[in-house]
Amino acid sequence: MTEALIHQTAENSNDSTTVTPVPATAQLSPADVEAAVFAIADRSRSAARKMAHANRAWKDRGLRAIGTALLERKDHILAANAKDVAAGRANGTRASMLDRLTLTEARIDALVKALENLATLPDPVGNVVRGQTLPNGLRLRQINVPMGVVAAIYEARPNVTVDIAGLALKSGNAVILRGGSAAAATNAALVIILRDALETVGLPADAVQTVDEFGRDGANALMRARGRVDVLIPRGGRDLIQSVVTNSSVPVIETGEGNVHIFLDSSADEEMAVDILLNAKTQRPSVCNTVETLLVHSGSTVLPAVAKALRAAGVTLHVDDRIRAALPAGVETVAATEEDWATEYMDLDLAVAMVDSLDDAVDHIRTWSTGHTEAILTNDLANAERFIADVDSAAVIVNASTRFTDGGELGLGAEVGISTQKLHARGPMGLTELTTTKWIVQGEGQTRG
Amino acid sequence: MTEALIHQTAENSNDSTTVTPVPATAQLSPADVEAAVFAIADRSRSAARKMAHANRAWKDRGLRAIGTALLERKDHILAANAKDVAAGRANGTRASMLDRLTLTEARIDALVKALENLATLPDPVGNVVRGQTLPNGLRLRQINVPMGVVAAIYEARPNVTVDIAGLALKSGNAVILRGGSAAAATNAALVIILRDALETVGLPADAVQTVDEFGRDGANALMRARGRVDVLIPRGGRDLIQSVVTNSSVPVIETGEGNVHIFLDSSADEEMAVDILLNAKTQRPSVCNTVETLLVHSGSTVLPAVAKALRAAGVTLHVDDRIRAALPAGVETVAATEEDWATEYMDLDLAVAMVDSLDDAVDHIRTWSTGHTEAILTNDLANAERFIADVDSAAVIVNASTRFTDGGELGLGAEVGISTQKLHARGPMGLTELTTTKWIVQGEGQTRG
Repeated sequence: MTEALIHQTAENSNDSTTVTPVPATAQLSPADVEAAVFAIADRSRSAARKMAHANRAWKDRGLRAIGTALLERKDHILAANAKDVAAGRANGTRASMLDRLTLTEARIDALVKALENLATLPDPVGNVVRGQTLPNGLRLRQINVPMGVVAAIYEARPNVTVDIAGLALKSGNAVILRGGSAAAATNAALVIILRDALETVGLPADAVQTVDEFGRDGANALMRARGRVDVLIPRGGRDLIQSVVTNSSVPVIETGEGNVHIFLDSSADEEMAVDILLNAKTQRPSVCNTVETLLVHSGSTVLPAVAKALRAAGVTLHVDDRIRAALPAGVETVAATEEDWATEYMDLDLAVAMVDSLDDAVDHIRTWSTGHTEAILTNDLANAERFIADVDSAAVIVNASTRFTDGGELGLGAEVGISTQKLHARGPMGLTELTTTKWIVQGEGQTRG
Repeated sequence: MTEALIHQTAENSNDSTTVTPVPATAQLSPADVEAAVFAIADRSRSAARKMAHANRAWKDRGLRAIGTALLERKDHILAANAKDVAAGRANGTRASMLDRLTLTEARIDALVKALENLATLPDPVGNVVRGQTLPNGLRLRQINVPMGVVAAIYEARPNVTVDIAGLALKSGNAVILRGGSAAAATNAALVIILRDALETVGLPADAVQTVDEFGRDGANALMRARGRVDVLIPRGGRDLIQSVVTNSSVPVIETGEGNVHIFLDSSADEEMAVDILLNAKTQRPSVCNTVETLLVHSGSTVLPAVAKALRAAGVTLHVDDRIRAALPAGVETVAATEEDWATEYMDLDLAVAMVDSLDDAVDHIRTWSTGHTEAILTNDLANAERFIADVDSAAVIVNASTRFTDGGELGLGAEVGISTQKLHARGPMGLTELTTTKWIVQGEGQTRG
């Protein structure tokens, strides 16, 4: 699972200008769409029941069958994708959006490789979370079981179709997909291939279904399917996620933005500071764990070296007045406004502010952070401990790059996304986060006194 | 934490007929109320930061200080409560509702005892969930940390005020309360006592706040306070919970109903079946883990004995035609309708249906269950395993009473409630479920390659 599959910027798929053929269902009333979507969810529930019984070997056969089918039908997929891309181009869709919409042989190969990686991972289902024998002899264990019906609402990136289906199937779930309609032809082709492949190994085709044909009404019906859909995962830009979070009565797992901070304490080593800042800002600026704001302690002596290294790497520094005054004249900067503290640039830009204390740094972070990842660079043990305790984010890092907040890097195997909410999952989410738990209590006639 | 504090039936506090004095804030517009509630949430955030730093000993001192204050100011509490009860009586409030509204010396003592029990429990905060050292030397651990700001919306049961505040504080959170306005005078008195007690031990008074003065608009504002409130816990009847689940953009933990089933397999022992059914139905019929439907395998020979025992205990049996035909003439029954399969009686009533197989039993359960608890009584190992695997409920029990689905019985210490949702927590919830996690990554300059 590469980050590119997961982190998207806030661009909409612009349904209104899509020229894919209008499906027969377009005339349906919202109530009719809701009935149709709920019927799909009920078929998904039946399929989920079968998926929950499939052991790891069976599910892995399904993932590999999907991989094989994707390779065998590559030409068909690329032809469908070419239609979507041509339509997008005709609509004047932006280049970055067209790029996300486009599948290539290499991208299909990468999807197949990700499925193969999923097949090598342990099965989260059946893992015993905890257990004990009670004084009255009851044997108690809490185990991971599949969520059941997982739904995903995402933008016009057809690789997400395969990605999220693979994750859901590996964790024993059935999945209902709603992709951006600008990718409708590609998604339709992919869903047929996935369903056929599942059937070849005896898994239920209905474990993968789509509501794309119902457009926005379909997405809205999914959000109202509480009790029928167990969890809804929005994947995409800020607007999409906020819309789902606000409108869904189905529980949502939010994978959010990263307005990531590094605090450069006065005791931080210069070489380490330069290395980490360069890595955190320039290794892959477009992803959510890249640093966006550097907070520099007023006692730090390494700021000039860090600033020069970042400038040499092409980073635009958006600085406050005190940082400007502390830098040599030769270091080019632009003046920061309050907006910079709030901005997730996802580009070669960095906001830089001076603070007089660790407390001031923490206050800045608490004001502006999205709760994704924050790091401190320091050689002061007490400050490291206080930073860890005081910063309320999914990941808190001491003396390492913020780029490590990633399921793959942290050893979780596949990554569903990085949760910035506090309920259910926080930080990098692995397959286990697509499961729930069940208590199993076994006795021989015990009653309660 | 007794079940009586947690499980409530669907009676509303009937705000419109309350005769408690109209507060000065009643003229505020919804926008003004929202601003006021958000300001309360922001003070709660500051208090939460202090609570997160309080170690176990300090928090336990706070709980005990609250207990002492409740005892010292018992007369004051009872006087305030008498006003609410008198107003309720004047409004014609039903007796069962008045009973829930009423505090007595004994009930205050029970609250203090529950606080003392909380103080004896381990602190969930700081527990290491998992950890490892990565190949690159990064030290990784995921620890439990407080949620932050917990809000609760509940009905006119003033004991919930103390109960939920104690749970939230013990787990290092700040809490915002919205109780039923029929208990407004009692809640106002309690909140002042709680806040004062926290201050006496140096904990922030704002760790306990109320939005009761804003009425329904206050509750609505709480539900919109996403980002300010970390989790919202509705406690009360079905209507209250459904309303919160549907309208809240703040993540919700739903503690739900229990339409609990027992499947009497043909191999079940008669004595065990009689004991467990009597216990599960009659020991405390008004709570959520009491059995509501008995499914009897058509090959079972113990039905008459079970039915006679239940009748002797005063249980009304709502039976289908096949059960009626299988019972001796002397066993009194009433005919079941489909509504019986859906009903959580919470009383000395039991629906009884005959099924021809374990699969039919599971199908019935999947159709009608609320996903709380189901049990099988059997001596057949394969059937036990299939029931465990096939039933998708928070707790699945083999050969024991359904009454064991309870945080106290299952060794969790205090109980926040029984979650029937799949996200975050499922089944009995302990203090840990009022925490989230934080990843802590420690290195010495590691960057990502």
